Amino acid sequence: MTESREVYEKALEIHRKYEGKVEVLPKIPYRGLEDFTYLYTPGVARACEEIEKNSDKAYELTWKSNSIAIVTDGSRTLGLGDIGSLASLPVMEGKALIFKLFGGVDAIPLPINEHDADRFIEIVEKISPSFGGINLEDIESPKCFYILEKLKERLDIPVWHDDQQGTATATLAALFGALDVVGKKLDEVRIAVIGVGAANTAAIRLMLEAGVPGDNIVAVDSKGTLYEGREGLEKNKYKMWIAERTNRSKIKGGIREAMRGADVVIAASKPGPGVIRKEWIREMNDDPVIFAEANPVPEILPEEAKEAGARVVGTGRSDYPNQINNSLVFPGIFRGVLTVRAREITDSMAIEAARALYEYAKPRLSEDYIIPRMDEFDVHERVAVRVAEKAIELGVARREMSREELKKEIDRVLDSTHEKVRVLSEVLSTLSP
Amino acid sequence: MTESREVYEKALEIHRKYEGKVEVLPKIPYRGLEDFTYLYTPGVARACEEIEKNSDKAYELTWKSNSIAIVTDGSRTLGLGDIGSLASLPVMEGKALIFKLFGGVDAIPLPINEHDADRFIEIVEKISPSFGGINLEDIESPKCFYILEKLKERLDIPVWHDDQQGTATATLAALFGALDVVGKKLDEVRIAVIGVGAANTAAIRLMLEAGVPGDNIVAVDSKGTLYEGREGLEKNKYKMWIAERTNRSKIKGGIREAMRGADVVIAASKPGPGVIRKEWIREMNDDPVIFAEANPVPEILPEEAKEAGARVVGTGRSDYPNQINNSLVFPGIFRGVLTVRAREITDSMAIEAARALYEYAKPRLSEDYIIPRMDEFDVHERVAVRVAEKAIELGVARREMSREELKKEIDRVLDSTHEKVRVLSEVLSTLSP
Repeated sequence: MTESREVYEKALEIHRKYEGKVEVLPKIPYRGLEDFTYLYTPGVARACEEIEKNSDKAYELTWKSNSIAIVTDGSRTLGLGDIGSLASLPVMEGKALIFKLFGGVDAIPLPINEHDADRFIEIVEKISPSFGGINLEDIESPKCFYILEKLKERLDIPVWHDDQQGTATATLAALFGALDVVGKKLDEVRIAVIGVGAANTAAIRLMLEAGVPGDNIVAVDSKGTLYEGREGLEKNKYKMWIAERTNRSKIKGGIREAMRGADVVIAASKPGPGVIRKEWIREMNDDPVIFAEANPVPEILPEEAKEAGARVVGTGRSDYPNQINNSLVFPGIFRGVLTVRAREITDSMAIEAARALYEYAKPRLSEDYIIPRMDEFDVHERVAVRVAEKAIELGVARREMSREELKKEIDRVLDSTHEKVRVLSEVLSTLSP
Repeated sequence: MTESREVYEKALEIHRKYEGKVEVLPKIPYRGLEDFTYLYTPGVARACEEIEKNSDKAYELTWKSNSIAIVTDGSRTLGLGDIGSLASLPVMEGKALIFKLFGGVDAIPLPINEHDADRFIEIVEKISPSFGGINLEDIESPKCFYILEKLKERLDIPVWHDDQQGTATATLAALFGALDVVGKKLDEVRIAVIGVGAANTAAIRLMLEAGVPGDNIVAVDSKGTLYEGREGLEKNKYKMWIAERTNRSKIKGGIREAMRGADVVIAASKPGPGVIRKEWIREMNDDPVIFAEANPVPEILPEEAKEAGARVVGTGRSDYPNQINNSLVFPGIFRGVLTVRAREITDSMAIEAARALYEYAKPRLSEDYIIPRMDEFDVHERVAVRVAEKAIELGVARREMSREELKKEIDRVLDSTHEKVRVLSEVLSTLSP
């Protein structure tokens, strides 16, 4: 606990020193006052007129081509609960930093002080035109599902809820890698899903679409396993959807019963330890795979899971092997969709991102490396190219490019971002903040 | 006209090449993945908790300390009219660039697709908490007055409508300089104000507060001079306000009558030439001062005004002497208020900014230099320090600092901005955009 107190105090010190994590800087070299004849009045009027005639021109003439808004109501920030929108800003800024460093994406942290879902949706809609995408963040469940659904319907730019789709995509990639290591097949394994919040709900959807038979999935919430006909489920249409598609054999009980005989456990429920017990792992099938994704303390500590016979263990933490984290996903996903000016991000694009992550890791797969690390810089380029290709294939891209063109364009943006960050880091290190 | 077609085509080419003018970059040097333990999860939680307990801590721990939103509904963009919010984005980005280059301010271009004033106000309110200020831009009159008033009432951060207050502040600074050159006194001159839109309405308010007697001002709109009792005025409460406070002698007629015998003309009406005639200037008092601020073509061309006897001529254009432009004002004003975390920008703070501009120019005042140029970099520092001091004096600052401390802090921010822009400009020149 001392260790984490030190982490917290050092975090506060860094936040104080820099007063935030991102800033707005010129995208164009500054040469002198005469620049403003073209960048500002009178020249700028011509760019305005082009966009007035054809709104898609905004992609060519403004930062829309590369910018997204990170929006939140702060209702479920980290594990802190509903701390309000402003208090969530440090997280949004951290995310913006990761978006730029790894994806070359201009992400604007934009907490919105509105807890009503419909009014929140309306505000996002009204501020959306000048962005190339929207990233929803830290919104409580089930409100987050409703907001995502409605905004996807209403907007012609990609809307992504990272806590659902990002985590689900990373989980799917880790599942591909883990099954490869234990030598089992996706359409044959039995999977226990512990916790039915935002991330696991999306994970179930992606797994079903990726080819896991619904009968092979058993999900558990705080009231027990989900199955069609379970009392009280009709109040939550998202849980109903799961109950109708999984656990046809209607296994009843709790976590233990869901785990019994399973090959894989995917837990994203409440901080442990002790949520998952050693003896329940012993009742699983051979070579069990455990993803214990609760933060900061996993549902079972990796060392305990290993003692109980787990062959592969993944967590959400960076200090254990196999970190399953959405930061592996969102920079590349958005780099890809912005490059082709996509209208949306479909589940099959998310699955494609998971496959790209898996294939990147494949040559080096082991029990301690089932998924790449965020700082393997080129992994984000791989994800971006594959997602962009998929968008073109699905017909949701405004811009068609060959694989070679995509690779060249995405490399150009990422390389120039890394170069800018490098020189800026140098100067930032020499300046008083 | 060929010349301006060339300007327009080059402007379009630059906009296309760079796809926008500003980007989001890290404010903290990137050292490696371990940084994210402090900048992102788990460390970031501590910063969130601090802000949850005390929202003012956001100034210490996030970009709120240095960020503002540039919001618009696009209803009066440049001279283009209501082109919609998205089409105004190139202007907002240009402004963001100027905010950073000259004021070290992180300004986020945020066009809002909402034309109803009350709904617009509500949206700005809901997105405002994470910003240190709001800059309203390119909103039609009289809606802009209403929006400014209401937002000033509702928010505890400065709200500024640059087309009103910025232009008015620059005009007041130019008036101080011009009167110095012609050797006349502010409380003795007669001033004809041509056009009663956003900028001139604010200019009248500032002039009254700065000490011009109301009787000495005669304003003219498209229906003639304003005076108490003029028919039809009751429909516009902002014009009523002016009519009640100026032109007590009830001079009737149009531009010619308002100008007859006047010492100064401040025109911000419709593009010329020919709106102001030479013979009307000949009917003014000795050493007449003409500000013809319409863009792109002034109400009378400077050479014509000079031929008719004008002693000093100012315009909104950069290619004539004495450019009266809000870009002289907004970078310094916001640098000042952000540094002291001010709650608002009062008229007396705007007047203080005008005085700082005048005093900066004073040692070199001449008929062709009545106000500084935007690229005299240190002018913005002067404005910032004076505005910050005034905010402290008025009790609207959250942070109290001595003049020395203010100067040191503001210099630090501006110097480090210039250094970042310099190294970034170098690398941007070598990269393909």
